[in-house]
Amino acid sequence: MESKSAPNTIGKPIKCKAAVCRGAGEALVIEEIEVAPPKPWEVRIKIVCSSLCHSDLTFWKFKSGPSSLFPRILGHEAAGMVESVGENVDEVATGDMVIPVFRRNCGECRDCRFGKGNVCTKFAVRYPGGMPRDGTSRFKDKDGQSIHHLLSVSSFSQYTVVDITHVVKMNPDFPIDMACLLSCGVTTGIGASWKVAKIEEGSTVAIFGLGAVGLAVAEGARLRGASKVIGVDLIPEKFELGKKFGLTDFINPTTCGESSVAEVIQKITNGGADYCFECIGLASLMQDAFASSRQGGYTIILGVEMHGKPISINPYELLEGRTIIGCMFGGIKAKVDIPKLAQKYMQKELNLEGFKTHEVKFQDINQAFDLLEQKKSLRCIIWMDA
Amino acid sequence: MESKSAPNTIGKPIKCKAAVCRGAGEALVIEEIEVAPPKPWEVRIKIVCSSLCHSDLTFWKFKSGPSSLFPRILGHEAAGMVESVGENVDEVATGDMVIPVFRRNCGECRDCRFGKGNVCTKFAVRYPGGMPRDGTSRFKDKDGQSIHHLLSVSSFSQYTVVDITHVVKMNPDFPIDMACLLSCGVTTGIGASWKVAKIEEGSTVAIFGLGAVGLAVAEGARLRGASKVIGVDLIPEKFELGKKFGLTDFINPTTCGESSVAEVIQKITNGGADYCFECIGLASLMQDAFASSRQGGYTIILGVEMHGKPISINPYELLEGRTIIGCMFGGIKAKVDIPKLAQKYMQKELNLEGFKTHEVKFQDINQAFDLLEQKKSLRCIIWMDA
Repeated sequence: MESKSAPNTIGKPIKCKAAVCRGAGEALVIEEIEVAPPKPWEVRIKIVCSSLCHSDLTFWKFKSGPSSLFPRILGHEAAGMVESVGENVDEVATGDMVIPVFRRNCGECRDCRFGKGNVCTKFAVRYPGGMPRDGTSRFKDKDGQSIHHLLSVSSFSQYTVVDITHVVKMNPDFPIDMACLLSCGVTTGIGASWKVAKIEEGSTVAIFGLGAVGLAVAEGARLRGASKVIGVDLIPEKFELGKKFGLTDFINPTTCGESSVAEVIQKITNGGADYCFECIGLASLMQDAFASSRQGGYTIILGVEMHGKPISINPYELLEGRTIIGCMFGGIKAKVDIPKLAQKYMQKELNLEGFKTHEVKFQDINQAFDLLEQKKSLRCIIWMDA
Repeated sequence: MESKSAPNTIGKPIKCKAAVCRGAGEALVIEEIEVAPPKPWEVRIKIVCSSLCHSDLTFWKFKSGPSSLFPRILGHEAAGMVESVGENVDEVATGDMVIPVFRRNCGECRDCRFGKGNVCTKFAVRYPGGMPRDGTSRFKDKDGQSIHHLLSVSSFSQYTVVDITHVVKMNPDFPIDMACLLSCGVTTGIGASWKVAKIEEGSTVAIFGLGAVGLAVAEGARLRGASKVIGVDLIPEKFELGKKFGLTDFINPTTCGESSVAEVIQKITNGGADYCFECIGLASLMQDAFASSRQGGYTIILGVEMHGKPISINPYELLEGRTIIGCMFGGIKAKVDIPKLAQKYMQKELNLEGFKTHEVKFQDINQAFDLLEQKKSLRCIIWMDA
């Protein structure tokens, strides 16, 4: 454990290594950067490990539009230790283990206090490449040029600065790589299963896309006692992999013969699944998920549709009692819910280890990109001190 | 009050008057018909009063397709007294005040026992023009020709036969015309507000279409303490009318100038309403409702889209935390929830009287159609003994 005595970096810029993305789709370059001290309501975190989520790939590839911001420090799944805090921060202190999260949870706004979902309306304006309060950057490269943030986290740096509303304090005994896994994808899937769908014992579940998010939905369904958990994926090996997360059935859309995937699911579930989750981000798949849901069933959209395509829904099918729910971060209120998931892991109920399929040193971070692009990894832990 | 002594009609066909619809859009004709005795699990009801719901108009007008069934006895909002019951019926007995409901609630299937919504999966097959168990009719005209049922109710007859799963027993002290109002439209609106949206104190609500269903949503929102209840309708007089059901704001889409209705609602609610209800049945309006909902907000679809048009939704808008819920009968489980609404009325909390704008004798039933078509009535009570 780190000492809680004040490091001599407090109040000063820190020079450290970061993997900087200089252009869309280009390999990250490990550079020395300067990380400014935290301003009021901010926390400077020494990132111990980070992992790669599919959304990092998405932002990495944006060639145009408001999300195409370079140079940029990607990464938004991570865990680390608080190096120092800015004014007004008393929730965490130097030496605390924390995870940064992209979905804010101020705890004060109407939504955080009363809302059914996890929208936080603390700040009205969105700054895609900077800190959430003022839009400015805390990163400079060796030429003094400002570097863009990603999703208020930017964890592919040995130090980062995060607003306190994006920080969750973890129990110091919690394994730090498992903490890292709780900071985005896995939590999204379990949250969608528990907090959005609120899956009950005996229900039937269909999951479109068996990446880490989809398998985390399965894990959530398993723990809730779902009677059938049907995975839909193009890679047949995902069935074996998915079984340890509770998968009971598997559909490869290319081998359904004359039947549609929805028809196969309707057959397995005797009329349609209670809960259908789209975890890829394709409008056509969202429609398939909806078509696979029974009367009274729920379609939960987790995937980010990257082609800007609308989904087309027959209102009468809705009226029969179907619901479509979109959710970011699985409806999870980070500061309230992540500690509960951590407890489930400590009680040996929640399978987190299964999601950690690879580990690399920081200098090999581009390998993590290759592994995810080739669909070989679920989560690759990147150890930042290497 | 009726006597509970067995009437001498038990086990025999009953001759009575019914308003028969002989062809799409044709004026109903009061005819003498014969109503068969109830089969097992069925209840024969002496209808005391009925009222006209917009869905009756819809079925009345179907010129083709599987819903175009004539001759037919329309009507599905009603209240009456049990005349006799078939075998296996012990939930109600001769002389009980009951209301028939189009949405089944068997109380035994998985959905009725555990489900979140109000789908009842007791019977797998749907019979659009007959009894729900076997699809046959209990009505014959004077030439012995079978007459189709509507929605398992067919209340525009002095006697009708309804499956026990479609019957709700009422307290004998309850005013029978108010019971009639609880059998479909008003309950749909209040249910959507309380059971589907689960509106909380202080929330903002937008309602597209201020017929009885839309105004019942408002009434539900008023009782839940919504801070803003915005009505959208083409008829300006609806604002005054709606105020007694809690309406606080009114938008006439034709007088919004350059702004869209969604923009006006976003302005009034500072970013979009928490709950948007579509109570007309137009795909374009459903999309307007969705566009008027804030991040984290809900769009509830109550209207039946009659043109078969799909709704087109941007998945990213969903992903930001929006939900679209379709519901029949406002998510109400008839036998469980209607007695609760009745109690709210008896406690003088729920305004039911406001929905009864007209009354006619049975012989004048076609006037009720005119009043509703001309949007002059909310609910017209049709007294069946006249």
